[in-house]
Amino acid sequence: MPTIRACYACERTFEPSRARCDCGEPLWRPIEPLDRWPSGAGSSGRSIWRYDAVLPASQPAGDLEAGGAAVWRSHSLEGYAGTHVWLADEGRNPTGSFKDRGSAVGVAATLEAEIDRVGTVSHGNMARSVAAHAAAVGIDCTVLVPADIAEERVRAIARFDPKIVRVRGDYGRLYYDALELGRRHGIQFLNSDVPLRVAGQKTLAFDLLERIPDLDAIVLPVSSGGNASAVWKGLLELRAGGLLESLPRLYLTQAAACDPIAAAFQSSRERVDPDADVRETVAYSIANADPPSGTRALAAVRDTGGAVLSVDDDAILEAQDRLARDAGVRVEPASATTLAGLRQLTEREEIDADETVACVLTGRGYGGRGDVPSAPVVDREDLESTLESA
Amino acid sequence: MPTIRACYACERTFEPSRARCDCGEPLWRPIEPLDRWPSGAGSSGRSIWRYDAVLPASQPAGDLEAGGAAVWRSHSLEGYAGTHVWLADEGRNPTGSFKDRGSAVGVAATLEAEIDRVGTVSHGNMARSVAAHAAAVGIDCTVLVPADIAEERVRAIARFDPKIVRVRGDYGRLYYDALELGRRHGIQFLNSDVPLRVAGQKTLAFDLLERIPDLDAIVLPVSSGGNASAVWKGLLELRAGGLLESLPRLYLTQAAACDPIAAAFQSSRERVDPDADVRETVAYSIANADPPSGTRALAAVRDTGGAVLSVDDDAILEAQDRLARDAGVRVEPASATTLAGLRQLTEREEIDADETVACVLTGRGYGGRGDVPSAPVVDREDLESTLESA
Repeated sequence: MPTIRACYACERTFEPSRARCDCGEPLWRPIEPLDRWPSGAGSSGRSIWRYDAVLPASQPAGDLEAGGAAVWRSHSLEGYAGTHVWLADEGRNPTGSFKDRGSAVGVAATLEAEIDRVGTVSHGNMARSVAAHAAAVGIDCTVLVPADIAEERVRAIARFDPKIVRVRGDYGRLYYDALELGRRHGIQFLNSDVPLRVAGQKTLAFDLLERIPDLDAIVLPVSSGGNASAVWKGLLELRAGGLLESLPRLYLTQAAACDPIAAAFQSSRERVDPDADVRETVAYSIANADPPSGTRALAAVRDTGGAVLSVDDDAILEAQDRLARDAGVRVEPASATTLAGLRQLTEREEIDADETVACVLTGRGYGGRGDVPSAPVVDREDLESTLESA
Repeated sequence: MPTIRACYACERTFEPSRARCDCGEPLWRPIEPLDRWPSGAGSSGRSIWRYDAVLPASQPAGDLEAGGAAVWRSHSLEGYAGTHVWLADEGRNPTGSFKDRGSAVGVAATLEAEIDRVGTVSHGNMARSVAAHAAAVGIDCTVLVPADIAEERVRAIARFDPKIVRVRGDYGRLYYDALELGRRHGIQFLNSDVPLRVAGQKTLAFDLLERIPDLDAIVLPVSSGGNASAVWKGLLELRAGGLLESLPRLYLTQAAACDPIAAAFQSSRERVDPDADVRETVAYSIANADPPSGTRALAAVRDTGGAVLSVDDDAILEAQDRLARDAGVRVEPASATTLAGLRQLTEREEIDADETVACVLTGRGYGGRGDVPSAPVVDREDLESTLESA
């Protein structure tokens, strides 16, 4: 792919084959200023492709039209959140998560570069997303999963017919191994913080700011740090193009059981260290003990004047429940960390009651677990009295 | 609600409280001509609310932005389908199915009429959809389910905190009982073919024709006949407004195990009779032995020059697999009947190879069942040879 990669931290540039800067930080494509909003009409509708002036590829045939997030204001959550809250439902993407933005752009750019194989290291949202997008445009896909993967996950990924390889050994290291092996064997790995994925996921920032021009803050779950980096980059590109004067503050949320980025933020460290004391959490999909773009995510937070928050499982489950009962949105626990985090922020007055804040609901996940609620059983003939008594 | 209801068959009109015409057929709101396409821009984005000139309510606060179906051409399925095929992914709606269009409009109109309670008779897509939309705008919701409902379904519905009542007895009859009880107890039941639901679901026709002006045919799964009626009504409104010259043919698909509408069509009957010989099918969500709008659906097919098709489970599962592997879309089996039906139509040359056809993928369903596919297990150190050999 005929472009350079840049380091956000020290601004050095490299050949596109390089994964990391000499300083150790991940690279991205240089800032591409977005200097006007696309017109509302046009064949690409509300998908990410309406921003193709600043994307590294064009929409390929068969593409699934990722993006176009539903973004709306939820009055019913204002009391709980303590401020004006907007929801962005990334579950409306082709495979039900924010990952589709990056997968779509990554697969499209791979196709344009005449590489015939993509891959990823994931057993969750990203695996399904990359496999589906590869199937849609007709290129091969290899998904590396842990050897002890749950059966339901294999089924969900296998539906799109990628090559699935169950790998024994350190799954964290595999993230970097795969990038290296991919370069040697002609596989474009679309792992969570690679430049092509970041280039697609930055469109979330465009969607948010196009819809909510007076946005004060964004609350986003963080795992690898790749999506946080992407949203930051999107904001920088809006500012560079003159569409945004000052950046909204970026708040990132982690589950308390695995919160290396929050720990680094709270102790004012420059870099994120691996979390050596990881516990189980309901928000398993963001439990990343050694996030490859953790330090970059920290830089995004500091640059925008935000914070990184740690929320416990009780608060996550309560927020998940509130989102369903009060706003009608089903999300996976990882997404509910945003509302839980926002509540923390307004309680300690880091966010004021009159500010406008977007919670990014990153995905729907696998659905139902937990207790089955009780419901009365009545005979059809007796239904009337049941309805009366309600 | 200050409007009349009309019979599509004999054109008599009635007070809105009436459910059926004297001739026995279901009523709908009179045809409202759509005489211009909405502008692409605007705050309601791509949702159904951009057509609010012909909807019975305005978008309420908290609304989930249903509609805006992703509609795209799938070159990769052309060989299998035997013609130019477009896909409309209704799984991109707020709760993952086409039902959200009707639930959104039904809930909004109920709110405007100052009725504080909606209900539905469903244990599938419609139950989740009505419950979520009621939660989003803050009105009460009652869901009537069969007494022997599966636990996973209760969980999926209960998430949005409706009142769930498990009803023993004839579930088919309950459809009509609920409408009657609802009138007596001030509950607006949004069952599958009521006028308010049809008024929302007609927007699917608008989405399709706005995106594919030269559409020759639409293939749609049919269950109660409510959605087929709605799509027909949408087409009639486009023609009445001058936006459409001739209607695309409407093809409806049923599972062979439960196909009363197909049986009536094939034997050239005027009315649909209940299917007395229902078997199990993978497409359980469209297995309706006594469809309340079956005869109206038949009228839609005859008016547009289409047909009703019956497809067996093997063909449904094969089409479901093709949609995932070749087009990157996960759908429930009911949705896959469309591609299976289209293949039948081109094989017997009822649809030509140069026609443009939209398959409506109505929903995602509950996901993973069936065998877990095998995947090789390798040690991380041995990964390179596995990637080489691919």
